[in-house]
Amino acid sequence: MRTLEWIDTPDGGLVRMVDQTRLPNETIMLDCADLGTLAEAIRKLRIRGAPAIGCAAAQGIALVASRSRAESVPGLVAELQAARDVLAATRPTAVNLFWALERMMARAEALLAAGVERKAFVQALLQEAVAITEDDLERCRRIGKHGAELIPEGANILTHCNAGALATAGYGTALGVIRAAHDAGKRVHVWVDETRPLLQGARLTAWELQQEGIPCTLITDNMAGYLMQQGKVDCVVVGADRIAANGDAANKIGTYAVAVLAHHHSLPFYVAAPFSTVDLALASGQDIPIEERDHDEVALLAHLATQPACPAGVSIYNPAFDPTPSDLIAAIVTEVGVIRPPYRETLAAAAPRG
Amino acid sequence: MRTLEWIDTPDGGLVRMVDQTRLPNETIMLDCADLGTLAEAIRKLRIRGAPAIGCAAAQGIALVASRSRAESVPGLVAELQAARDVLAATRPTAVNLFWALERMMARAEALLAAGVERKAFVQALLQEAVAITEDDLERCRRIGKHGAELIPEGANILTHCNAGALATAGYGTALGVIRAAHDAGKRVHVWVDETRPLLQGARLTAWELQQEGIPCTLITDNMAGYLMQQGKVDCVVVGADRIAANGDAANKIGTYAVAVLAHHHSLPFYVAAPFSTVDLALASGQDIPIEERDHDEVALLAHLATQPACPAGVSIYNPAFDPTPSDLIAAIVTEVGVIRPPYRETLAAAAPRG
Repeated sequence: MRTLEWIDTPDGGLVRMVDQTRLPNETIMLDCADLGTLAEAIRKLRIRGAPAIGCAAAQGIALVASRSRAESVPGLVAELQAARDVLAATRPTAVNLFWALERMMARAEALLAAGVERKAFVQALLQEAVAITEDDLERCRRIGKHGAELIPEGANILTHCNAGALATAGYGTALGVIRAAHDAGKRVHVWVDETRPLLQGARLTAWELQQEGIPCTLITDNMAGYLMQQGKVDCVVVGADRIAANGDAANKIGTYAVAVLAHHHSLPFYVAAPFSTVDLALASGQDIPIEERDHDEVALLAHLATQPACPAGVSIYNPAFDPTPSDLIAAIVTEVGVIRPPYRETLAAAAPRG
Repeated sequence: MRTLEWIDTPDGGLVRMVDQTRLPNETIMLDCADLGTLAEAIRKLRIRGAPAIGCAAAQGIALVASRSRAESVPGLVAELQAARDVLAATRPTAVNLFWALERMMARAEALLAAGVERKAFVQALLQEAVAITEDDLERCRRIGKHGAELIPEGANILTHCNAGALATAGYGTALGVIRAAHDAGKRVHVWVDETRPLLQGARLTAWELQQEGIPCTLITDNMAGYLMQQGKVDCVVVGADRIAANGDAANKIGTYAVAVLAHHHSLPFYVAAPFSTVDLALASGQDIPIEERDHDEVALLAHLATQPACPAGVSIYNPAFDPTPSDLIAAIVTEVGVIRPPYRETLAAAAPRG
C-alpha cells in the first residue's frame, strides 16, 4: 500500500490516500479531487508525517493545475499561488510542506519563464510532484540503509509517534531504519510509545510493525523512563518535522522528554529524516514554530472516546511538537549518511546543493 | 464529600464510597456491604490512592466483623484472617494496604488476647477502622501545612496522577500541599499530567482542583518535558505508593520520568506522603513490587473508548507504578515534617515509634 498516490482521471486527476485517522480499525481510501479536501486531509491528520505532508502538498499543486480552467499559463500560475497559500496554512511545524511547495512553485515559475505551453506546463508539474514522491521513497530506503548500521543485534529500540511508511511516501524514516535492520537479519524488538494525544504510535506504528512481522510492544508514553531504568531499552530512533542548522530537531510532542530520558540513561538517541526536513535558515530549535492543536484532542482522547476524559471547562494545553536540543542527539540519519556533531558544520557540509 | 465513609446499618454496616471510575462525568456512590464488593472496588480502582486503599482495607475488616455470623471471638478472628488475605491480594504496590491490614489484625489479636466479649470486640474494631480514616485526614492536613512552605508565591506546580482528597481519606497529600499553599493565599497554577493509562490526572485531579477554584491546566504526560524546557514549571509535587528506607519512592507509572525531567532542568521534585507509606523493611525502590495491570487499560483507553486504539493482537506492557531513586527527590513531605537527604538516616529517625 502506498501512503498516497496520483491517479489520472478524465477531468485531470486526484490524490488517493489511506485515511490514517481510521487506522487500524478500518482501511479507508480517501480520494482528494479538489484542493479543499486535500488541505482538510492534511489539517485533520488523515495524512501526516513531515515527508508525507510534503508529498501531499506537491501533489496538491499538481491537482489544482490538472483541474484548472484558467486558459493561460500566467492565469494558471496565479491559481497555483493561491493554492500554495492554502496548503502552507495547513500545518506550521513540518518544514517539508514548505520545501515541497517551494520546489513546485519554483518549477512553475521556471516553466512560465521558459514560455512552455499550457498542456506541457500541467504535465511537467505533475511529473515534478510524482518525482518528489518517488524521490522521498528512495531517500527513505537510503536512510534505512545508513541507519541500520547503528542498530545492534538483539536491540530493544524505542520509538515515539509514527515515522513509518505512513509518514512518508513509503518505507519510513525511523521505522525505515528499523525495517532495514530487520531485513538485514538483525533480531530487533521495538517499544512503541502510544503517543498521546492522537495515538499515532498505537494506531499506526504498532500496525505497521505488526504487518511486517517485526516484534513490538505497545506502551503508554510515561512508561519509557521505567523501561530505561530497567535496562530494557538499547537505543531510541525517532523522525523529525524540522531540523535547525545546529541539529536541534522538532518532532512530535514528547520526543524531547524521551531524549532527556535517553541522555540520563546514557542511551543513544537517533533522529532519522530526509534532508528536506533540514531548515538551514533556522539557527536553533527555539526558532521552529510549534503548532498548537484543538483541545478536544486531549479532552476527548481523539476520535476514540464517547465521553470527555476531564471535567467540562477545564483549561487544556495541546502543543503538537517539541524541539530537542542537538546535544541530546547522538546522530542524525539522512539519505546522504549518518551525520554526527558538531551539527552546525556537519549538516551544512552534508546538505545537497540547490 | 468524603472519599469513603462507614455507615451503620441494622445488619452491621457498610462502606460507602464515591465510584472514582465514573468521575468526572457522574458522581455515583457505591455501597459495599460485603467483602467481595469492597475487594473488587479496590481492584477495579473504584477507590484508589495509597492512603485511601489503606482506609478502605481497614473498613473492610470492620465490615466483615460487623456482619459475621461467627458466634465466638476466635471464630470471628479466623474469618478476619481470611478477609485480610482477600484484601491483601487486591493490589501489591501501595504499602498502606498492608500497613492498615496489619494494624487491624494486631488490634483483633490484642482484643482476643484480652478476652474481650464479642460485641465489644466488633465495636472496638470498627472504632479502629474509623480512627485510621480520621487519622489519615489529619495527617494529610499536617502534610499540607509542612509542604506549603516549599511552594513559592506564583509557582507553576506540576503533578502526576491523583494524590488528592480522593486518594486519601480527604484533603490529599500532593494536592494537600497545593491546597494548603492556595489556602495560605499563595497564587499557584497546577499543570495536571493526564496520567495514562487510567487518566487519574484528567479525571480526578483536574476535577478536584476545579472544584476548589485552584487554577490548573491539563496536559498529556509527554508534554511535561517541553513545559520544563520553556521554563513554565517551578516545582513538581507527587504522592507515593511506597517509600523504601533509602527514600526511593514508587508512585504511578510515569513519575520516574517526571523526576528525571525535573532533575535535568534543576527543578525540585517533592514527594508528599504519610508515614504509613514508608516501608523501612525495604532497602531500596528496586525491592518494591510493581503491579502489572490489564492490557485493555492501554488498548481501550480505559472505559472511555468504543474502539481499540491499537491493532488487535499487538503485544502490550502495562506496569502501574515505577520507583524513583531518592537522589532525584528534593524532599519527602510527611505529617511529621519535611524530610531531606540522606534519607536512610532521616527517614528512620523521623519514623513514628510503634
